[in-house]
Formats: sequence, C-alpha cells, structure tokens
Amino acid sequence: MNQSTEFSDVPGFARYPVNTLPIQVELGSESLFLLWDDGHQSEFHYLWLRDNCPCQQCITPLSREQVFEICDVPLDIKPINTSIESEGRLVLQWDFDNHRSRFHPGWLRSHCYSVKARNERKWQPIIWDKECITQQLPVYDYQQIKQDNKQQLHWLKDQRDYGIALIKSVATVPGTLAEVANCISFIRETNFGTIFDVKSKPNANTAAYTTLRLPLHTDLPTRELQPGLQFLHCLENDAEGGESILVDGFKIAEYLRQYYSDDFTALSSYPMDFYNVDRETDYRFRAPVFALNSEGDVIEVRLANFLRGPIDLPSEQIIPIYKAYRRFIELTRDPQFQFFYRLQPGDLLVFDNRRVLHARNAFDLKQGGRHLQGCYVDRDELLSRIRILERAIM
Amino acid sequence: MNQSTEFSDVPGFARYPVNTLPIQVELGSESLFLLWDDGHQSEFHYLWLRDNCPCQQCITPLSREQVFEICDVPLDIKPINTSIESEGRLVLQWDFDNHRSRFHPGWLRSHCYSVKARNERKWQPIIWDKECITQQLPVYDYQQIKQDNKQQLHWLKDQRDYGIALIKSVATVPGTLAEVANCISFIRETNFGTIFDVKSKPNANTAAYTTLRLPLHTDLPTRELQPGLQFLHCLENDAEGGESILVDGFKIAEYLRQYYSDDFTALSSYPMDFYNVDRETDYRFRAPVFALNSEGDVIEVRLANFLRGPIDLPSEQIIPIYKAYRRFIELTRDPQFQFFYRLQPGDLLVFDNRRVLHARNAFDLKQGGRHLQGCYVDRDELLSRIRILERAIM
Repeated sequence: MNQSTEFSDVPGFARYPVNTLPIQVELGSESLFLLWDDGHQSEFHYLWLRDNCPCQQCITPLSREQVFEICDVPLDIKPINTSIESEGRLVLQWDFDNHRSRFHPGWLRSHCYSVKARNERKWQPIIWDKECITQQLPVYDYQQIKQDNKQQLHWLKDQRDYGIALIKSVATVPGTLAEVANCISFIRETNFGTIFDVKSKPNANTAAYTTLRLPLHTDLPTRELQPGLQFLHCLENDAEGGESILVDGFKIAEYLRQYYSDDFTALSSYPMDFYNVDRETDYRFRAPVFALNSEGDVIEVRLANFLRGPIDLPSEQIIPIYKAYRRFIELTRDPQFQFFYRLQPGDLLVFDNRRVLHARNAFDLKQGGRHLQGCYVDRDELLSRIRILERAIM
Repeated sequence: MNQSTEFSDVPGFARYPVNTLPIQVELGSESLFLLWDDGHQSEFHYLWLRDNCPCQQCITPLSREQVFEICDVPLDIKPINTSIESEGRLVLQWDFDNHRSRFHPGWLRSHCYSVKARNERKWQPIIWDKECITQQLPVYDYQQIKQDNKQQLHWLKDQRDYGIALIKSVATVPGTLAEVANCISFIRETNFGTIFDVKSKPNANTAAYTTLRLPLHTDLPTRELQPGLQFLHCLENDAEGGESILVDGFKIAEYLRQYYSDDFTALSSYPMDFYNVDRETDYRFRAPVFALNSEGDVIEVRLANFLRGPIDLPSEQIIPIYKAYRRFIELTRDPQFQFFYRLQPGDLLVFDNRRVLHARNAFDLKQGGRHLQGCYVDRDELLSRIRILERAIM
C-alpha cells in the first residue's frame, strides 16, 4: 500500500507505512474508538485529535511547527461529523470554529496509545553480564560503518541497546577520533576540552591522568548531564597493566532491585553529591546514583567514588545510603559482571557513559607508553542520528 | 581565627572560616555528637567521618581525589579514641586498620547535616511576577562586570536567583556575545551552532527564524538537558513589533501547586513529548513539564507548544494532562505574570532558559530590520563560575 510523503498530510519527514486500515468509528463522550481491519482497536480522545490536526492552518508550512494551541478550543470539543475517506483517512468536522481535520491512517496507527501499542513501542536495553557480553560484544570495522549507512545504523542501534561496541581498524593518528564521532554529530565540550588525551601527566587534575588504578565509574558525574557516549581510542598501549574493565550498571541496578530492594530504593531516591574541584573550575552536582524515568525504568547510573563530595542527607538516611552504596560498589567488583578488555592500537571502544561503568588497572610505564584519546557525544545526538538513518533506509 | 588552606587538612581549594569550635564529643552507637561553643550540636555518623578522612592516604595528593573506598572498612567501624586537639581539630583513632583521621573545625561545621544546618544552606530562588520584576530587574553595565570580579559575582548570583538579568552597553558588533558568555565558560553547542542569528530567514527550520509571533516557551525542550542560560544580544531592532515577553515559570508552577494541585501533579509526573524534526536531525525528548528535585522543589520547566510531539500516555491520563496543560498555557498568558521588554541595540538579555519562559510578538520588517544573536551556557558552568569567584573574593 501507499507510503505517504505529503507534508500537509503527515507532519515531519518520517514516512508511515499503511499496513492496516480503519474500518469503523464509534463515538464516545470524550473520545472515539477506531476499529482497524487487523482487529486492533484504538481509542483517540477528541482533544488529542484536535491537538494533532496536521492541516496547514494548524502547522505552519514556514517551519513545519504547530501554531495552533489547544487551549484556544473548548475543553469539551467534539466532532459533529466523522467519516473514513478513501485510502483510510479519518476525517472529523469539529463543533467549534468549523474546523476540519484529516488523519493519515499510517500516522494514526503508529501513534495509537493503547496499552498494547505502547508496550510494542517500548524500548528495552539488552542488559549484560560478563558471560553475555563476552559472547555478544558488538564489533565493527571502521571503514564499513563510515561507508555504509546500513552498517552505521546497525552499529548505532547496538550502541543504544547494549550500551557498548568496539570499532576496529581506526587509524592510530591523533585526532582521528573526531572523524568517527562526527559520523554521529558534534562532540560534547567539557572543561577537559573536546578531544582529551588519557595519559600520565605531570600536575594531573584528575586521577584519569595518572598511572593509578581507577575504580569502576562514570565520567563527569559532577555535571547535571553526564556525557552520553564515551569514545576511547587507543593510539599506544605498551605499558604493563592498564587493562580496561567494563560493567553494565543497568545489570547491577536490576540485581539490586531484585535482591536488595531497600538498597535499590535508597540509591534511586536519596541524592549523593559529586564534586570536581579544580583551580579554575568547581563543578558539583547532586543526584541519586540511579535515575528512573516516569515508568520506573533505570535510565542512568551516576557514580565515581573519587569524585564524591560529603554526603548531605537527613541523619536517618545516612546509614541506609552507606549500606546501599557499599553494596553497589561490592557488586561492581564481582567478576561475574566484569568484562575485561585490553585495548590494542587502532581499537576504539565506545560505551554509554551513563550506563556502563568503566575502570582501568594501574599501569607501569617502564615497559612502554600508554596513550588513549577520548571524547563524548550525547545520547540526544545518537538517537537523532538513528532516526535520520532509519528515515533514509526505510 | 585561622582560615586553613592546607591541602592535607581540607580537601579542595575552598577555605573554611572557623567561627565556632567544638567543645565536647559524645559517642553513640553509630554516630558521635559534637557540641560547639555557639551551642549548636552536630551528629556525624562514623561511616561518614571515615569516608571523609582528608589524610593523604585517603585522598591522593596527585589529583586531590579520594582513593579510599568506604566498602573497604567494616560497616560498624567505630573510633577507639576521640579527642579535640588544639585549634579545634576533631581527631579519631579507628578500631580498624589503625587509621587516624583529623578534621578541620571549619570544614566540619560547614558540612554539618543537622536539620537546621541543611535548612540554612538551602538555595531558594527569588520568584517573580510582573510587578516584582518591573521593580527589581537586575541591570548591569558590561564594562563593570567584565573588569570587576565583585560586580561579576553580583551579576551571576542575580542570574542564579532571579533567573534573569539585563546587561547594557554591549557593543553592537556581531560575535561580541561570545566574549560575554566566555566570562562564565564555554558556549553550549547545539545543532543550531554556538552563536545563532535570530532573524527572519528563507527556509526557516524553526519558528524563531520567521517573523511569526512566538508563544511563551523554553528553547530546545527536545534535548534531554535544555540549555541553561540563554543570551539574547540585540544588534538591531527597528522593526515594528517583536517585543520580548518573559514569564517566571517557577511562579506559574507555584501558583498551580497552590490553587490547582491536580494540574501541578499531572504536569510534574506525566511526561509530554517534544520533537524537533528537521532534514538532517530529529531530536525528541519525553519529560514532564515540571522537573522536581528529591525534595519536591521545582527545578526546571520544559515547554514549547510548537515543538510538541503527540502525547503518548495511558488513556486515563489524556484528559488530566490536557486539562493541566491548557491551564498552564492560560496562566502564561495572564498579564500579571508577563514582563514586557523591548530590546534596544546594545542590550543583552540573559535568562535561565529552564525556568523563564520567553516569547516575542510578531514583527513587520517594513519599518526596519530586527537582528538578535543568541547563545547558551549551561547551569553547571554558571554555578562553577560563582564558586570560583566566591573562592577568590572570600
């Protein structure tokens, strides 16, 4: 069947395949019920339908943005006439202002908010432990994802779903990282710059720039929005030690939720303080270790022991948060969750810094050098790029 | 009395004035109680004290970051010896590992987590309506804040507390904005670039770049982290119309919380969808209109009617969210909340984009041109800069 690309019909640039057609409308007091020819039933509220009218009076062709505002019609707006037109368009004539709205069936079905439709649309991460990721680690060749948009989309979906992927054969030329990151979008700037060098430096302003062991952590928990994707590109790794360790923070969160629910509650509701205090900057942020969305799913993990400020909570929450925090740290040390990887020159490890905790063993420079370059790209950019690639490929 | 700057004594670069001294320690089962010579009493838990030990074994001098981890001592760690040393330092000898911790009295008092101390530390915004801000709008001269760190600190604290300030006499040279923003930190990049030109453009990809009226909104609600400070620098404004309108979103939120608590609950718990769909980017984010911190304070408002996607909620939440959303929009239109200002060339309006809604009237270019430049700097950067200036001035 048809795929519509008419802008006056469907807002935006996405296409909405028509796989099923509405066959019957039943009017209720606040909403209508649409029966589709595959047996599915959708409820659409009148306010919702009026709000989403795609006509050129409601959505200006100048910028494709809505100029209509829903508070400019009565709360109890209703259709006085309803029909299903040719090609399955739902047409409503409103009892206010003589307005008429026509809805494309593909658009309408893909925005159905029935329990079933919402469940089908729900994104689920692929949560891993050591065994799982050892078998399933997504690995890509850089030339492939650079030249082939389908491969790039595969990579980025893995990046979104596993929160980790390894890219091989990236030229060991400083700065090449920017080229890879720009496949997605611009690089997120921080006080460490855009591309940062991870090597032992005199006057280090963070433990990352020493040869010390780094315990499992997320980067920049001291910022309100922790950077999303972290890129670590290995240029040189002849030092003894310095292995990378990665743990899926979502796995630890779900483990706690299942077996230690009080600890899970403390870590998702009592804020902890994170400080990064330097000579010219002084970043601090306060948030729970686990951020949940409105449906209770864990969407973020925030943790770096070496960047914590003093806990600042009511007295009765001090022992519970320490118990929970200790349990969390102990679990990150459990080998069943830890994926070890020794970066080789040309390897680029990309992981969701707000989900996957990373660590490195201490290293010794007597045997040779160790030089990584890193940068960040935010989740917004990853998801936008996925949508653009999907739009082109669909 | 002394102000300590010894790094081995107090972590970080801040100084902690000693205005009162501890005079007595009483040991409990999980915590100790410290009596101060001004009559205040602090409770500090043993785990908290051990966690915050400032010695060089626990905090590496290499990067001033903590290498000690609290799960490496027993949960029931206790002091076997406690004393108050000369200059009021609290000294604890632990029952584990022979470790000794010494605490600076100024640091300790300023991290007391009693109800009273926490209330005194709590930041409160100055919430305004039209009448209040008409009288109290913070206005600064650019040369003053550029040359005088005390004036700059005043400005930035007003920026934090009122969420709005006007800077006068900024040269009407394109790009000067960057110089002002860099007083604070780097500019937040988005898909609109770093510095963006607000003027009517052919092929506008947002309503901002047309001559259309813009209803009250926050910028980029389609990003997970909406930009914090928004800078709008007026280079030219000879067009008819185009007045700026500003509303304190925190005021609307508190009004709703007080008079329409169901609407407040819906807007702070049911997520709405925000889309910015363009040819090469497709940003979408889903979040409630009001974000609350763990104490229930409103910390963010997210709203642009012209950037909303279809509401995607369980059926029973559709009518409540529309009722609440309509009420919110109606309140933003109430003149008692609206501050009008017509930007003059050389004016730079800076406001917290996550709090202060902004709008502009439609304009007509027959009478002359209208050209603003804008950019964003995040809240993290503002707060960091305030801390650095306070450190230097204290």
